[in-house]
Amino acid sequence: MSSEATEERVLEAVRARRELVNDALDEDVPMAEPTRLYEATRYLLQAGGKRLRPTVALLTAEALADVDPLTEDYRSFPSLDGTSIDVMAAAASIEVIQSFTLIHDDIMDDDDLRRGVPAVHKEYDTETAILAGDTLYAKAFELMTGTGADPADGLEAVRLLATTCTRICEGQAVDIEFEQRTEVLPEEYLEMVELKTAVLYGAAASITATLMGADEEIIEALYRYGIDSGCAFQIQDDVLDLTVSSERLGKQRGSDLVENKETLITLHARQQGVDVDGLVAADTVSEVTEADVEAAVAELDDAGSIDYAREKAQDLTDRAKRHLEVLPDNEARSLLEDIADYLITRGY
Amino acid sequence: MSSEATEERVLEAVRARRELVNDALDEDVPMAEPTRLYEATRYLLQAGGKRLRPTVALLTAEALADVDPLTEDYRSFPSLDGTSIDVMAAAASIEVIQSFTLIHDDIMDDDDLRRGVPAVHKEYDTETAILAGDTLYAKAFELMTGTGADPADGLEAVRLLATTCTRICEGQAVDIEFEQRTEVLPEEYLEMVELKTAVLYGAAASITATLMGADEEIIEALYRYGIDSGCAFQIQDDVLDLTVSSERLGKQRGSDLVENKETLITLHARQQGVDVDGLVAADTVSEVTEADVEAAVAELDDAGSIDYAREKAQDLTDRAKRHLEVLPDNEARSLLEDIADYLITRGY
Repeated sequence: MSSEATEERVLEAVRARRELVNDALDEDVPMAEPTRLYEATRYLLQAGGKRLRPTVALLTAEALADVDPLTEDYRSFPSLDGTSIDVMAAAASIEVIQSFTLIHDDIMDDDDLRRGVPAVHKEYDTETAILAGDTLYAKAFELMTGTGADPADGLEAVRLLATTCTRICEGQAVDIEFEQRTEVLPEEYLEMVELKTAVLYGAAASITATLMGADEEIIEALYRYGIDSGCAFQIQDDVLDLTVSSERLGKQRGSDLVENKETLITLHARQQGVDVDGLVAADTVSEVTEADVEAAVAELDDAGSIDYAREKAQDLTDRAKRHLEVLPDNEARSLLEDIADYLITRGY
Repeated sequence: MSSEATEERVLEAVRARRELVNDALDEDVPMAEPTRLYEATRYLLQAGGKRLRPTVALLTAEALADVDPLTEDYRSFPSLDGTSIDVMAAAASIEVIQSFTLIHDDIMDDDDLRRGVPAVHKEYDTETAILAGDTLYAKAFELMTGTGADPADGLEAVRLLATTCTRICEGQAVDIEFEQRTEVLPEEYLEMVELKTAVLYGAAASITATLMGADEEIIEALYRYGIDSGCAFQIQDDVLDLTVSSERLGKQRGSDLVENKETLITLHARQQGVDVDGLVAADTVSEVTEADVEAAVAELDDAGSIDYAREKAQDLTDRAKRHLEVLPDNEARSLLEDIADYLITRGY
């Protein structure tokens, strides 16, 4: 299938579930007292987002149950033992964790904007943002205990969520540590990306299967699907920063280079002897010119670094799709394959 | 029994378990990579603390199982259905949550010291402290999933832990909100204390019973024991700040008054028409004199506010102890009664 047709199918699948996920988030993290805390807690959740992770969680449930997409109620979804479980609560839980990590990350990185609106610590204050993140953290675990799954499966899902959170913290700490290091290997970068970004995709892809009582090897394969496609997703982000126009990106092309942010591309280039630190003279995105960026990208291209990243992302995607072979061959599985492709073919 | 004898018994019970709890914390939150993150994560856990909450969790298990204190291995403790469960992991989980909240609270309040050592965000930095708190948060849930309890009981324990965390966040937000309010009623203050402080005592007192498969009314009664004695504990803290010498407190007597921190005592005094804001002229603890504090305390005493707080704490303690009547009459239960008494008779 052409990448345009794949993209169209993926965006349609995401669109079809986004409204349902948004309604669930509104229901499952309701307004409450104290008002200011809950406004801050719901603020980023309501600022939008593709809801890609919940979509993956819902699609794996549909693929595993072998039902036609969007024909079953996600709130009372057929488990493998015939009982009904609330897979939407699990999908929402993953999105709530994602939201908590963004709020705390933005405090740590002192980022001003998120999803086109001021970051929570800018719209409110740092104290409220820390507390809003902590509240979401608790809510995610509350949600995961209320799916109605077999208790052993429910407990396993909580365990997966907890270890995922531990790893995300480790990944963020490694990312901060890299800024102080003089040399980081591409493999170390990929390990960091796996911890910081991909484990939550892994959790999203395997959490509903866990709750539904799937066999261990199916859960493991789905987890690996999430890990591999999540890593590919991050590498594609790094490629896009260099190869897509500023207009389409919605921010300065090459901003990672200007801000001296290491990526798989720059780390590979360093190994090839490229003077990465000297590639762009400007220190801020307002000073850099398109010609500067163009020349820098050409040098990275000559070193084979952009191709290296693209190949790495493609390999990971191929591997991710192979993990899906444990699922019945149906439309939901086909959509999960499309999502893996989309993550590395998307233009922004 | 005299309050000195009670105190001696309580301190002995705490001392006898502290080493075991410390060992468990060291095992259950082990050093790992990245090193700096895990050093920060373990830093406050290793700085000491009475371990009162884990002690309560372990004693309720012993009272419920009707075993002689310290005769059973807490790592394979007899559950009510005859299986063995790790009640120590649950006790450690509660202490880990306490540690996480202290780290994040100290960032929010910009407090420099905790347990006699620099706060984590002072010893490390704010980013690392946020992340260390987030890591402990995840570890607490990991621990709670690994007790070996019947899965339905395990899931219920996780749910209790999650709702407890939500309430602690709400309590901290209400406390911050009170600083901006012109009038707070004593009842509102007590609600805040219940959320911010007492719910974790409630969780500590009922978590092992939950894991052991106790009846709902026993779990509920133990929870109320924790709530009532936790509230009494906080009120006693407020009383001690005014009635104990600076030397014994280890900080300036009356520091709450100097720092304009509202307590049950000042809120009651306001209702009696006392000009609380004018009680102490000094704005910092370095400027205040013992004579100033003495005069202020005399005025609060005349208004009946100190007695009001003491009576409130005593009522809560009496109620807390009555909740324990659901337990078998044994030495562990007697120690839990002593702990409730100790929380309001302790001199520091």
